[in-house]
Amino acid sequence: MKTRRKFIKETAAGAMAAMSIPKVLYEFPAGAGQKKIKLEKNNVILFQGDSITDAGRNKQNESFNNPSSLGSGYAFLATAALLESFPSLNLKVYNRGISGNKVFQLAERWDKDCLDLKPDVLSILIGVNDIWHTLNGQYNGTVEKYRNDYIALLERTMAALPSVKLIICEPFAVPGVKAVDDRWYPEFYEYQKSAREIAERFGAIFVPFQKVFDEAQNRAPGSYWTGDGVHPSLPGAQLMAKAWLKTVL
Amino acid sequence: MKTRRKFIKETAAGAMAAMSIPKVLYEFPAGAGQKKIKLEKNNVILFQGDSITDAGRNKQNESFNNPSSLGSGYAFLATAALLESFPSLNLKVYNRGISGNKVFQLAERWDKDCLDLKPDVLSILIGVNDIWHTLNGQYNGTVEKYRNDYIALLERTMAALPSVKLIICEPFAVPGVKAVDDRWYPEFYEYQKSAREIAERFGAIFVPFQKVFDEAQNRAPGSYWTGDGVHPSLPGAQLMAKAWLKTVL
Repeated sequence: MKTRRKFIKETAAGAMAAMSIPKVLYEFPAGAGQKKIKLEKNNVILFQGDSITDAGRNKQNESFNNPSSLGSGYAFLATAALLESFPSLNLKVYNRGISGNKVFQLAERWDKDCLDLKPDVLSILIGVNDIWHTLNGQYNGTVEKYRNDYIALLERTMAALPSVKLIICEPFAVPGVKAVDDRWYPEFYEYQKSAREIAERFGAIFVPFQKVFDEAQNRAPGSYWTGDGVHPSLPGAQLMAKAWLKTVL
Repeated sequence: MKTRRKFIKETAAGAMAAMSIPKVLYEFPAGAGQKKIKLEKNNVILFQGDSITDAGRNKQNESFNNPSSLGSGYAFLATAALLESFPSLNLKVYNRGISGNKVFQLAERWDKDCLDLKPDVLSILIGVNDIWHTLNGQYNGTVEKYRNDYIALLERTMAALPSVKLIICEPFAVPGVKAVDDRWYPEFYEYQKSAREIAERFGAIFVPFQKVFDEAQNRAPGSYWTGDGVHPSLPGAQLMAKAWLKTVL
């Protein structure tokens, strides 16, 4: 049994720990030295992207902070941590990722699925389909098209939401696992370089997911973190959520 | 803004914390002083219970470590942390919670949904429906029936799986939120007392969820952590996952 004093002490310590949970969820060098985002009361946070962000979310449920509408990927896991860690901020978190999307498909639905939601914090993970669907003949993409479409999308975003806090997530892949073969390289490096340059150009926080998955392979094979080299497994999604929280907050 | 010194200090502290992520996910006094479970290679972990454990899992998908089969509650969130934190253990985590279940309904499906899975670690959260369904006239339960049914279920479990590591989770409710009115008390305290006594009787780890939800109300109103007083919200589920990990590991 605990003394009252000890209980109070631990509770106080716990309270402080709770305030910085996201920062200690995963002490990854990702984002070290980068600026952070200070979440404010009533902030609207939007996760945008492709299937990795979508993660099987229920498209009929467009509400915020809702497991069904958030899917079962990194966006859901990061949201659970955000809502539990910052109960006083009244955060509203949306997921509008859609499987298969490339940058131009984000642009096609951007008014409804981004600008109309007026996010204070916008996190985008896009790019893997821009190369993948080109390699498998479903799309005719190039690095230049990816870069130009992405820049145009963000210029349009900043014009409509000048004070939005931007987070650009690095498209990633795990070489040698199923879908990710030699045909991806070195071209995919150019897509990743473009994402990083675009983050710098727009003063966005950059989440280096490739580094996260590269480092994770010191703990388990790539196939443990992603089934097909592109889509994260459950532990892979948790890895992403931790890296996102660590980098952003 | 942070000073460099402060940043280094926090990073170092965080790095140590990262070595034992599950234990520091939430520095809650819950479970302090209790024995812990040491997970071992190839361990099978089973979450059993009612709708709070079920959390909308896809019953057609009976696989392990799978977001669809794990639902979107504390079992899913705890599993994501377990699989990411212990990649070398080849853990297999199942969720077999079913909405509306009372203890006797666990017993009816126990061979298929527990014993046949041969869990090394078995976590059970059951009891809220035993009183709730009695209060709303769907069931004719008593504390004695809850206690006796629960003891019989665990004796049957220990006979079939003598080396299983047991985790008994405390049934909880948030008084004053929707479904949880004065009719619950003081009787519900007896259900909670029975769960704690049963945990002691079987040498199980006891997860004090009531304390977790009571303490959380120092940070936000009860309605933030549970919509109806019984089912956790997303932040409530994260709260549970953290408390479970902190208490068990």
